[in-house]
Amino acid sequence: MNKKVVLAFSGGLDTTYCAKYLASEKGLDVFTIAVNTGGFSKDEVEALEAKARQLGVVEHRTVNIEQEFYDRCVKYLIFGNVLRNGVYPLSVSAERVFQAMAVADYVKEINADYVAHGSTGAGNDQIRFDMIFQILLPQVEILTPVRDQKLSREEEIAYLKKFGLDVPWQKAKYSINQGLWGTSVGGEETLTSHRPLPEEAYPTQVTEQTPLVLTLQFENGELSGFNDRKFDNPLKAIKALNALIAPYGIGRDIHVGDTIIGIKGRVGFEAPAPLLILKAHQLLEKHVLTKWQMYWKDQLANWYGMLLHEGQYLEPVMRNIETFLEDTQHHVSGTVFVKVHPYRFELQGIKSPFDLMASDAAAYGEMNHLWDGNDARGFAKILAVQSRIFHQVQQKAGGNEE
Amino acid sequence: MNKKVVLAFSGGLDTTYCAKYLASEKGLDVFTIAVNTGGFSKDEVEALEAKARQLGVVEHRTVNIEQEFYDRCVKYLIFGNVLRNGVYPLSVSAERVFQAMAVADYVKEINADYVAHGSTGAGNDQIRFDMIFQILLPQVEILTPVRDQKLSREEEIAYLKKFGLDVPWQKAKYSINQGLWGTSVGGEETLTSHRPLPEEAYPTQVTEQTPLVLTLQFENGELSGFNDRKFDNPLKAIKALNALIAPYGIGRDIHVGDTIIGIKGRVGFEAPAPLLILKAHQLLEKHVLTKWQMYWKDQLANWYGMLLHEGQYLEPVMRNIETFLEDTQHHVSGTVFVKVHPYRFELQGIKSPFDLMASDAAAYGEMNHLWDGNDARGFAKILAVQSRIFHQVQQKAGGNEE
Amino acid sequence: MNKKVVLAFSGGLDTTYCAKYLASEKGLDVFTIAVNTGGFSKDEVEALEAKARQLGVVEHRTVNIEQEFYDRCVKYLIFGNVLRNGVYPLSVSAERVFQAMAVADYVKEINADYVAHGSTGAGNDQIRFDMIFQILLPQVEILTPVRDQKLSREEEIAYLKKFGLDVPWQKAKYSINQGLWGTSVGGEETLTSHRPLPEEAYPTQVTEQTPLVLTLQFENGELSGFNDRKFDNPLKAIKALNALIAPYGIGRDIHVGDTIIGIKGRVGFEAPAPLLILKAHQLLEKHVLTKWQMYWKDQLANWYGMLLHEGQYLEPVMRNIETFLEDTQHHVSGTVFVKVHPYRFELQGIKSPFDLMASDAAAYGEMNHLWDGNDARGFAKILAVQSRIFHQVQQKAGGNEE
Amino acid sequence: MNKKVVLAFSGGLDTTYCAKYLASEKGLDVFTIAVNTGGFSKDEVEALEAKARQLGVVEHRTVNIEQEFYDRCVKYLIFGNVLRNGVYPLSVSAERVFQAMAVADYVKEINADYVAHGSTGAGNDQIRFDMIFQILLPQVEILTPVRDQKLSREEEIAYLKKFGLDVPWQKAKYSINQGLWGTSVGGEETLTSHRPLPEEAYPTQVTEQTPLVLTLQFENGELSGFNDRKFDNPLKAIKALNALIAPYGIGRDIHVGDTIIGIKGRVGFEAPAPLLILKAHQLLEKHVLTKWQMYWKDQLANWYGMLLHEGQYLEPVMRNIETFLEDTQHHVSGTVFVKVHPYRFELQGIKSPFDLMASDAAAYGEMNHLWDGNDARGFAKILAVQSRIFHQVQQKAGGNEE
Repeated sequence: MNKKVVLAFSGGLDTTYCAKYLASEKGLDVFTIAVNTGGFSKDEVEALEAKARQLGVVEHRTVNIEQEFYDRCVKYLIFGNVLRNGVYPLSVSAERVFQAMAVADYVKEINADYVAHGSTGAGNDQIRFDMIFQILLPQVEILTPVRDQKLSREEEIAYLKKFGLDVPWQKAKYSINQGLWGTSVGGEETLTSHRPLPEEAYPTQVTEQTPLVLTLQFENGELSGFNDRKFDNPLKAIKALNALIAPYGIGRDIHVGDTIIGIKGRVGFEAPAPLLILKAHQLLEKHVLTKWQMYWKDQLANWYGMLLHEGQYLEPVMRNIETFLEDTQHHVSGTVFVKVHPYRFELQGIKSPFDLMASDAAAYGEMNHLWDGNDARGFAKILAVQSRIFHQVQQKAGGNEE
Repeated sequence: MNKKVVLAFSGGLDTTYCAKYLASEKGLDVFTIAVNTGGFSKDEVEALEAKARQLGVVEHRTVNIEQEFYDRCVKYLIFGNVLRNGVYPLSVSAERVFQAMAVADYVKEINADYVAHGSTGAGNDQIRFDMIFQILLPQVEILTPVRDQKLSREEEIAYLKKFGLDVPWQKAKYSINQGLWGTSVGGEETLTSHRPLPEEAYPTQVTEQTPLVLTLQFENGELSGFNDRKFDNPLKAIKALNALIAPYGIGRDIHVGDTIIGIKGRVGFEAPAPLLILKAHQLLEKHVLTKWQMYWKDQLANWYGMLLHEGQYLEPVMRNIETFLEDTQHHVSGTVFVKVHPYRFELQGIKSPFDLMASDAAAYGEMNHLWDGNDARGFAKILAVQSRIFHQVQQKAGGNEE
Repeated sequence: MNKKVVLAFSGGLDTTYCAKYLASEKGLDVFTIAVNTGGFSKDEVEALEAKARQLGVVEHRTVNIEQEFYDRCVKYLIFGNVLRNGVYPLSVSAERVFQAMAVADYVKEINADYVAHGSTGAGNDQIRFDMIFQILLPQVEILTPVRDQKLSREEEIAYLKKFGLDVPWQKAKYSINQGLWGTSVGGEETLTSHRPLPEEAYPTQVTEQTPLVLTLQFENGELSGFNDRKFDNPLKAIKALNALIAPYGIGRDIHVGDTIIGIKGRVGFEAPAPLLILKAHQLLEKHVLTKWQMYWKDQLANWYGMLLHEGQYLEPVMRNIETFLEDTQHHVSGTVFVKVHPYRFELQGIKSPFDLMASDAAAYGEMNHLWDGNDARGFAKILAVQSRIFHQVQQKAGGNEE
Repeated sequence: MNKKVVLAFSGGLDTTYCAKYLASEKGLDVFTIAVNTGGFSKDEVEALEAKARQLGVVEHRTVNIEQEFYDRCVKYLIFGNVLRNGVYPLSVSAERVFQAMAVADYVKEINADYVAHGSTGAGNDQIRFDMIFQILLPQVEILTPVRDQKLSREEEIAYLKKFGLDVPWQKAKYSINQGLWGTSVGGEETLTSHRPLPEEAYPTQVTEQTPLVLTLQFENGELSGFNDRKFDNPLKAIKALNALIAPYGIGRDIHVGDTIIGIKGRVGFEAPAPLLILKAHQLLEKHVLTKWQMYWKDQLANWYGMLLHEGQYLEPVMRNIETFLEDTQHHVSGTVFVKVHPYRFELQGIKSPFDLMASDAAAYGEMNHLWDGNDARGFAKILAVQSRIFHQVQQKAGGNEE
């Protein structure tokens, strides 16, 4: 009996090469798996299955983990208003980690001897796959034929031709990675530091011009509905919202950031619902959380995003941060009013029973008794004490305080 | 001889009342001072002087501290990409502090016995004025007639009428506070949590529709010019840029945040050049600074903004933070490409000799030798070590790690 | 019927004055309350009750909230290894807050019209009492006769004499504040910056000279026992441990820190069990938590201590931090080996099933496979990438990188 | 002509093997270098030179970089009060980095083709050496024969025997690494989690029993002298102080921490002067710096220590942090009073013209005017505002705030 390998399969040139190579040259029983975190349509799933069959793999498995991805990750990205470098909703990097974990589950399930991925040695995804496998499958060897053999596309195509696999593997002008939490777009422009992406590079074209008035409902930090639509699951609300606003071209930008590997990277993306939800959620929080709740949420969420981006989802501090973030969301409930224009949106305001804004509290009839000018004078006086002493001590000591 | 009081004078109802009250009821020699941090036109300055004369003050002084305000504050706000709550460039709060310091200088110069401001007991400005005076003028008593007497506008008007000062003190629909680093806009809408400001509330109306292509030049973190215009002083560059892009309606938003006093506040603003400069500067930094330089700049700059907002400009840690921020700007030089549309702008990219982007470095001919797939494998393996041990120890200990 | 006031009563001169003054001059029905957070012996409680009776108050209540204080506060101080400025276990400041909350409960229970405390205007305790009452009793007026009247001790004594209360109120040489989590010691030395406290200032004298070998057991971060003694309640374990090691004179120090009010304060303390527990707990954590768990615990715990010290226990972020800290303690279980000498102790090591130390994991037989020299080479190479590019770019640009 | 290699040479078995191997098997001209960062005596330096000659290297160089190590690193460790995990003064890890930089200078000076170090693949030093060489010598190949060949000590000894090098290479019971900023001690005990080091493991034995009273002088954060001795160089003061107090056995401890490689490590050390200086310096800072200066110094210094420990000395943020730390030291001048006992020391207090302690400022005659009870009341009221509103809003909303 042959040894078994599980291969993370995307249907692209690299993983197709791996499937063939691992079976023919290594004599392994190849089990392919495609993990859907929200980026595959039904047609795409079926096309992938057909491709795998055509390659003659022992078995192909498709798993849909959108719900798990939402529950164990996206939810916390929303709680934390996570945007890498203030811009990027982590669209691709978060999904890779969950794909790797689903692959690891399959390896365990069928008790495979090896796990394989098709990454090259150049990028970040190899690190994410490797790390998750190292942690969850410490006894299982990781096979990475493309990385090890440093093959060019031409060499891979030539190899596949020998098996009669003469597919036209032309490279798309833009490399697109679609997922629940955004779609990344790479092209020759993003390899420079100075060129923007042209309109046609973005998967969704701007077809709507009439401004759209929206109300978003949040319950305990999660999107429960918008306008008059209630959803039994935030995942569905996100998808419906995305479909509605994508033709406005909002949530597009170019992210410049540090890769795991230490070099700077630049990538375009469109993420309509993610951007709108994150910004609306954050505005609601500005009204219902205290200053220090906001401060510490920002601190921890920033690290959550950074560690997630760098493949460290399984570092145990991530669970502690999730617990913290969840604990801050008890009162993040209410409505956010939004107006969507082509290429931009306005946050117009919020309504919440937990709004701490003075004007609302004043309606309770006691706000005008909170303090008077005399209290403010005492407050300012004492707030100034340390700096006042410092400046006096400087003068006495003849110090030059500047 | 009467005792002397220096009054921070804006020409509004409150400070007009103070001028009259301090002279007539307290028998003081009133010296008024108006401090221009970039918000006053020449006409406004002259009108203010005329008003002071009309009130019969002993002397009125106008001081222009735009340059000092830029050198000792705005520059660091740019270095730090400071936006309160991710939105607000601190337009008004920073200027109040510098106005107070200029008033304190005048008090020392004429050896005044008292210093006065017209703030009520409700807001934040009283705290900023009080704190600066407490620290810089520990021996000088602070007089605040409006705060102490809790007068209504009607009572103030009635008092002034007695002196024949029958000016029509109608309250403007929107209270506007103009300065170098942005203009704040308050109105009945901003007293609610849910209403946006109407177009007409903003001082500058949107009159430009044709997209504008811009290149911004930065030298050591400061704006040295734009397009083909070079400026001998970043202050002039800021003002020229602001005039050029204001008619596009960019840099408008509503800020929701925590006041010094603990309540939430909501305020509209327009700050065209500040927003564009801050975002362009930040993009340039993403290319030329390392990950940890960005991280620590953000941490310190966030506090710089917070302490400045809360009147703590004279806390000595502020000087330490300025030194840090300045030290990070040695290589923040280059060009940022921007496209300005009505209500929004796109950052298109940058050029800099200090760009750390791999693609540029690759051109130097050695990037492809930085690492190979084998290095990446070792890197991922070791990066996973701690989490790997953690998960193994959990399993051995029978722990339920989730 | 008279209006009711609840007075936080310590039996000292200030609160005795308040009791008499509030009844006689203000015509209030005075209800005194003494809140024991671990510092009162049975005798002291009875003496206090007798004093209250002698003063003729309407009712005196003693409440013991040691358990609540442990469960809602001390536990988290241990989880967080909280020492202000690296030295002080927050002995007194934490207890004041819990005393104030118990007083507030009593006010609500008997529906009192006023709440009173005996603080002067000089210190921090007034702020802690005021803040808790402001938050929990927004409708109840706070009475502070000693603060308002700025009385000297002599004036208070003279006033009490009129009622035949001729107690010898001599001031002790050292002011001692005893509690569950440590005893503070103030004296003329602590008012200077340079003088240490003499041996006799400390309540517990050093009577043990023979080193003591101890093993401390922790379960989920809490002290469950020591040596061969198991306790059903960590509170009992703490008290027994304190009694055992106090005669060694450990846990003594002088804390220099910032008060709420902005001035620097200096205070001596002895806190034998707190110091030993905190340091032993922290050593255990160094073995069972990951680097980033330790890092973020430290960050949040530092703020927990600071906000607690400053009377901000009811700020909602405190609950979020507690949730985080608790979530990190699932595996903080094991034994810590300690040797106690006069004036110092040595932490000798730990045993835990969750120990992440390589040597233990190696025993599992796979540690030598975690990485090899080749992996380390790749790891170092990639870890150096960003700095390497930075230095290259500097050289190309002719920049002076220092 | 042969190609040239520079070998970091310690005279131990591994680097001796490397010297012989690189010359004989690789045909390279071997240039050895020993870098003294404060750990070598004159005799040791000479012994090392003799060893190198005996090995027949082309040239041996000894460089003393103590002063540079102090100026560019130790000084900042003092400014930052840096102790890893609250315990360890980074004795060894900081010195490795500076040794590597000195080696790199030599490589450039003689234009060598290779650089070599004798590290195995197990530890952290390989990472530190590799990283510095990768950054400073991007074109120079790094040779690591011991790591690559995974040799045992026996194999190395057998190889050297072939050249008549029959030195008795017995392994010492404790591996000792001496330097300016402390001496590390490893042994079989430190490989466990629970065993302390025995007395005899420490290089300096405790021979002093009589308590020693000391005064330490600091100028701008640096140790300028102690008792009545003034030094023209802090480096000399450190060495003299260390010699004086080492026989008291202070500054000993066991550090448990995270290595660069992700595993936990445990190491003993003695660092008498470093510990005393760091704690005395910190106490002085508690008196002369403001709360937020202390806070931000701690934040940045903690990272300085972490990045330094992990070989990231050349990351540019380190220069920014050094600038910050230096900027905070302008007033860290004064005297610290210390009493040294066997195994421990007491910090008794400080004197400084920049002391912010209220009691000193009071002597200036105005402290009693800083605030009164009425100010404190207003201060507490406003400080409570946000939590007060939060609790009210909770009640109105029927929320269960816990």
